[in-house]
Amino acid sequence: MIKRSIGVLGSTGSIGINTLDVIRHLNNQFSVKYLSAHSNSQILIQQVKEFKPDAIAIVNPEAAKLVRKDLEGSAIDVLVGREGLLELSSWDNIDICLNAIVGGAGMEPTIKALEAGVDVALSNKESLVMAGSLIKEVMEKNGTKIFPVDSEHSAIWQCLMGEEGSSIKRIILTGSGGPFRTKPNIDMIEASIEQALAHPNWNMGRKISIDSATMMNKGFEVIEAHWLFDISHEQIEIVVHPQSIIHSMVEFIDGSVKAQLGLPDMKVPIQIALTFPNRLEASWEEFNPEKLTDLTFEEPNFSKFPCIPLAYDSLKMGGSATAALNIANDNSVRLFLDGKIGFTEIAEINEAVLRGHKWTPKPNLSDLIELEEWGKDFVEKLIEEKVIL
Amino acid sequence: MIKRSIGVLGSTGSIGINTLDVIRHLNNQFSVKYLSAHSNSQILIQQVKEFKPDAIAIVNPEAAKLVRKDLEGSAIDVLVGREGLLELSSWDNIDICLNAIVGGAGMEPTIKALEAGVDVALSNKESLVMAGSLIKEVMEKNGTKIFPVDSEHSAIWQCLMGEEGSSIKRIILTGSGGPFRTKPNIDMIEASIEQALAHPNWNMGRKISIDSATMMNKGFEVIEAHWLFDISHEQIEIVVHPQSIIHSMVEFIDGSVKAQLGLPDMKVPIQIALTFPNRLEASWEEFNPEKLTDLTFEEPNFSKFPCIPLAYDSLKMGGSATAALNIANDNSVRLFLDGKIGFTEIAEINEAVLRGHKWTPKPNLSDLIELEEWGKDFVEKLIEEKVIL
Repeated sequence: MIKRSIGVLGSTGSIGINTLDVIRHLNNQFSVKYLSAHSNSQILIQQVKEFKPDAIAIVNPEAAKLVRKDLEGSAIDVLVGREGLLELSSWDNIDICLNAIVGGAGMEPTIKALEAGVDVALSNKESLVMAGSLIKEVMEKNGTKIFPVDSEHSAIWQCLMGEEGSSIKRIILTGSGGPFRTKPNIDMIEASIEQALAHPNWNMGRKISIDSATMMNKGFEVIEAHWLFDISHEQIEIVVHPQSIIHSMVEFIDGSVKAQLGLPDMKVPIQIALTFPNRLEASWEEFNPEKLTDLTFEEPNFSKFPCIPLAYDSLKMGGSATAALNIANDNSVRLFLDGKIGFTEIAEINEAVLRGHKWTPKPNLSDLIELEEWGKDFVEKLIEEKVIL
Repeated sequence: MIKRSIGVLGSTGSIGINTLDVIRHLNNQFSVKYLSAHSNSQILIQQVKEFKPDAIAIVNPEAAKLVRKDLEGSAIDVLVGREGLLELSSWDNIDICLNAIVGGAGMEPTIKALEAGVDVALSNKESLVMAGSLIKEVMEKNGTKIFPVDSEHSAIWQCLMGEEGSSIKRIILTGSGGPFRTKPNIDMIEASIEQALAHPNWNMGRKISIDSATMMNKGFEVIEAHWLFDISHEQIEIVVHPQSIIHSMVEFIDGSVKAQLGLPDMKVPIQIALTFPNRLEASWEEFNPEKLTDLTFEEPNFSKFPCIPLAYDSLKMGGSATAALNIANDNSVRLFLDGKIGFTEIAEINEAVLRGHKWTPKPNLSDLIELEEWGKDFVEKLIEEKVIL
């Protein structure tokens, strides 16, 4: 493989750290051109010293000060704030940008990179949930591609290698069901932050762990799959598979089914997104098929996890609806993690924003940014007025 | 898809009948040019009336008489005996030959078709077990291909679509473990023909059902996979999966694993072998992932099923060894089905022939035919002299 140059957005989060693990392991196959972080100055400084990027961006100005001080005298460009992040995302002198930013904040960087002619390894599923239609236009116009980093979408992508899109009958997204799968509804109402963060199989960041607990994450994955693989919501199904061994499946029109599987380790989907169309040697996981025991599958419970049908609804509504749902969820999850609302209120807020937003058929970037502001205010008001509580 | 012309060898057996089911369903996509059978005149006559081939071959002369009489006055060519079969296999005016002949008798027809420039959809795994090296040469010389019809090899083939051979870490062949998986060894010694034929998941012909009971079939599949996918025996593993849902897996060098799965129905692998590189619509199986329960996996028991290590041994020995094992097994299974030997003597005979045959490094077709005659005599002698009993 020819050496590739890469930028990593969100390098201090769970996926960012795993990405740099992969790059470290694939010694000399990648050169890291930039890194970005929200506010974790300590990890970012370590990463800069090891991977020697040309530039970094750090969104939080206080954290930026610490980083600047530590890196004083080095030739590295230190960009600051949201502006700095967007400037970095627009760099066109790299082969691939891995976007592991958390939440809707990742959308614009995805668009900037694709506009700059850079392919994106996309962990930030919110990009497509917020702006799927817009992003597809940008990709077409600039001849750029998205490679999925989500384990489910990577599984589907791998199952579709060498296959025609017209051969797909349906996509079967598997999900563990999260920490509340077997818990009674009453436990969810009273769930603490710690209980909601305790994912049974995957060790992930806080936001996505909560999204897994509400199964909003699985709903967003339906929307993401729609855009990534050009298929209708009617052809996307969710099946709960508590062991997280089968990462997703594709059923073809001739009745054949393909699946990608393995132990839950994000380094596998990260690596293939970076090395595609090559596969490079790695021994991330010791796969022992003999150790697979009692793989089980069940239907998801839509009434227990109302975020799933909300996602399908938003996809059917189209236009601004999926963005509204994503904005709602970014806010409701933040409020839950701040201890301001209860667990089941996440879904209530999400539904209120989806139903209450001013639907538009084809939002552009500034419409989406406006919607984001409106959404934040609307959610604040809901809480203040205790419409929800 | 452009209409394809097809010949079906062994059309009255289980795979042959399933193949014609597929062709009937894919109405107007295929034109059947020839059929062949060993001796089942009744089914063959029905098939001729429905599919109107240009010619048929029937190996058994008595059965041929019945067929000729029934089809008197029609324009169809009726070829007789082994010679007739080989003449038909050499036809070059078809697109694809599906070879579903049982046992080593299928080897020469495979070679004849490939030599005639015809691609082969291969159900007769014994072709590659007998003459893998020879067949690869013929394929290369004539630019012809083999498409696997075995469910396991079809699974692997499908998992490898869009992938490079150099990306394969290992192939994991799944097998149900057959009817004796959970039975004590003593039961196997005393096993009746009916018990050995009672496969838990697949409804198959008699010979392959016995091969599944001894797990010789799984051993032959290792040899077949070696030739089909150009990989060493060290990269081929067997795992017992009693539910027969995952039809096989491929592990890649980057730690990713792909599997093909579905309900056990041979029509799925038959169809893709005939329509490749297209997939055509079919609804052979209602695949309900939610209905998959408790998929389990375990290591195969080599001492209980000595035919498996025999297959690995023969592959390591190379040259004539796999052919000798196949010849042994064709004879031992016939003797078991004739009630002349006990179930566990199948493996004993297979081992005696493998160890006792005159090994040659690069047998040609006449060497193999000679070996076949020697093997038959040798096995007869073993039985007469009660060396085995």
